Amino acid sequence: MKTISENACFGGTQGVYSHQSSSCNCEMTFGLFLPEEAQNGPVPVLWYLSGLTCTHENAMTKAAAQGWAAEHGIALVFPDTSPRGDDVADDEAYDLGKGAGFYVNATQDPWKPHFQMWDYIADELPALLAENFALDMERQGITGHSMGGHGALTLAMNLPGRYRSVSAFAPITNPSASDWGRKQLTAYLGEDESGWSKHDATLLMAEKGFDGPILIDQGANDQFLDLLKPEALSEAIAKRRQQAIFRMQPGYDHSYFFVSTFMEDHVAFHADALYAG
Amino acid sequence: MKTISENACFGGTQGVYSHQSSSCNCEMTFGLFLPEEAQNGPVPVLWYLSGLTCTHENAMTKAAAQGWAAEHGIALVFPDTSPRGDDVADDEAYDLGKGAGFYVNATQDPWKPHFQMWDYIADELPALLAENFALDMERQGITGHSMGGHGALTLAMNLPGRYRSVSAFAPITNPSASDWGRKQLTAYLGEDESGWSKHDATLLMAEKGFDGPILIDQGANDQFLDLLKPEALSEAIAKRRQQAIFRMQPGYDHSYFFVSTFMEDHVAFHADALYAG
Repeated sequence: MKTISENACFGGTQGVYSHQSSSCNCEMTFGLFLPEEAQNGPVPVLWYLSGLTCTHENAMTKAAAQGWAAEHGIALVFPDTSPRGDDVADDEAYDLGKGAGFYVNATQDPWKPHFQMWDYIADELPALLAENFALDMERQGITGHSMGGHGALTLAMNLPGRYRSVSAFAPITNPSASDWGRKQLTAYLGEDESGWSKHDATLLMAEKGFDGPILIDQGANDQFLDLLKPEALSEAIAKRRQQAIFRMQPGYDHSYFFVSTFMEDHVAFHADALYAG
Repeated sequence: MKTISENACFGGTQGVYSHQSSSCNCEMTFGLFLPEEAQNGPVPVLWYLSGLTCTHENAMTKAAAQGWAAEHGIALVFPDTSPRGDDVADDEAYDLGKGAGFYVNATQDPWKPHFQMWDYIADELPALLAENFALDMERQGITGHSMGGHGALTLAMNLPGRYRSVSAFAPITNPSASDWGRKQLTAYLGEDESGWSKHDATLLMAEKGFDGPILIDQGANDQFLDLLKPEALSEAIAKRRQQAIFRMQPGYDHSYFFVSTFMEDHVAFHADALYAG
């Protein structure tokens, strides 16, 4: 593991690190905010998964999360959204290939050799973090924005017991039925849709739900509402009687101005779960 | 005036606008955060001047200021740092020309036709803002980072009565004696150093001081300490018995991780002054 940078930030440290990923077969970069409390022992962890076109850097610089994480003594992990490098397959479209890993393990060429983001986020990166930093991996929460909200929700429901709480900002909720989803799941997983369901938050909610609290914020003026389909997940949550708070926020769009506005609430929500019991 | 974008943000609106500037003879862009309170009448204004290489956008996305401004019902103005456009003179160095206006009125060619940032910030932009937005121009404060801290301090001391409070993050304090200053003041104002003194916060502090409170934060691990020279202004403040708080912050560098960390304190500091009396 290589240290790219470390900056003092809200009494703790905002670091950027890279490492050779065995899942993705390339050098991967991630951001990690450690609060001051990490100097004295392991702290709880909140994962933040980013959206289309993002790297590890977007949320780290624009989501205004570190101040609230410092207040609650929580670490923040900011992974990249896809494998990177000259020999990694890509597409001209912004929503396929680099910057658009969709948090799945690709089974199809040309994506298969590198696009194993599910394994990277679910297994490889947590193991690396646990080995190298003062993190309490028994206390993890997960959140994300847009494609990252999709990742957070699908990881949380597929890995019961792993995360105590899950939240999302304007998540892609029903990729099997959206142009943000069908194209990518076809490319990465193939045309047989039976393999898609574990990567669709709405279908997962209908099938199994989440064993903890959920918080979702969605801007009512989001320019991508037709692709995000909040109504699909919202309905599934209500049908299941899933413990959840779903907030439709009037006036807000899809930008980081929306994300940063409600970050305080999301970090506090996770802190409640991470410090309970 | 043209609206580039408006995003809901912390209950208010983060806007970006452009206009033909008569001072700079080019199209200029600025950011303006208006808190919810601006819907009911004029609100106080806090100016944020940015540093070298920045545009109107850096602080707007990375300084995490809007949340605190919303809490105090204060507007934030984010001007650009120089004139822009294909016919505007530039230099290959990052610290001269575009992105490096240094908040002066150039008297020398090739800079003179466009680089009139002092007039732009002191006169033209305030008049435009007063005409178009619900801002209480009797209640203004000013802050900035690095070159923008230099701008904030020099504007505040040269325009007594204009700003109720001034603060700065890692300001260039003594440009007459620094490589961040001598090069630019020579280029923009000419070799006669007598014209430089109104653009040197340390000299201004010795000569006249500021008729209100000052807050300055400086990171002790700032990679540019030799250029910023905090000791020069610090000494001048103490000699003058100027009302001021100067904080040397252990561990912090020159980045926006430093700026965002202490933004809450700066906005609260200005709010105290803006709502007093």
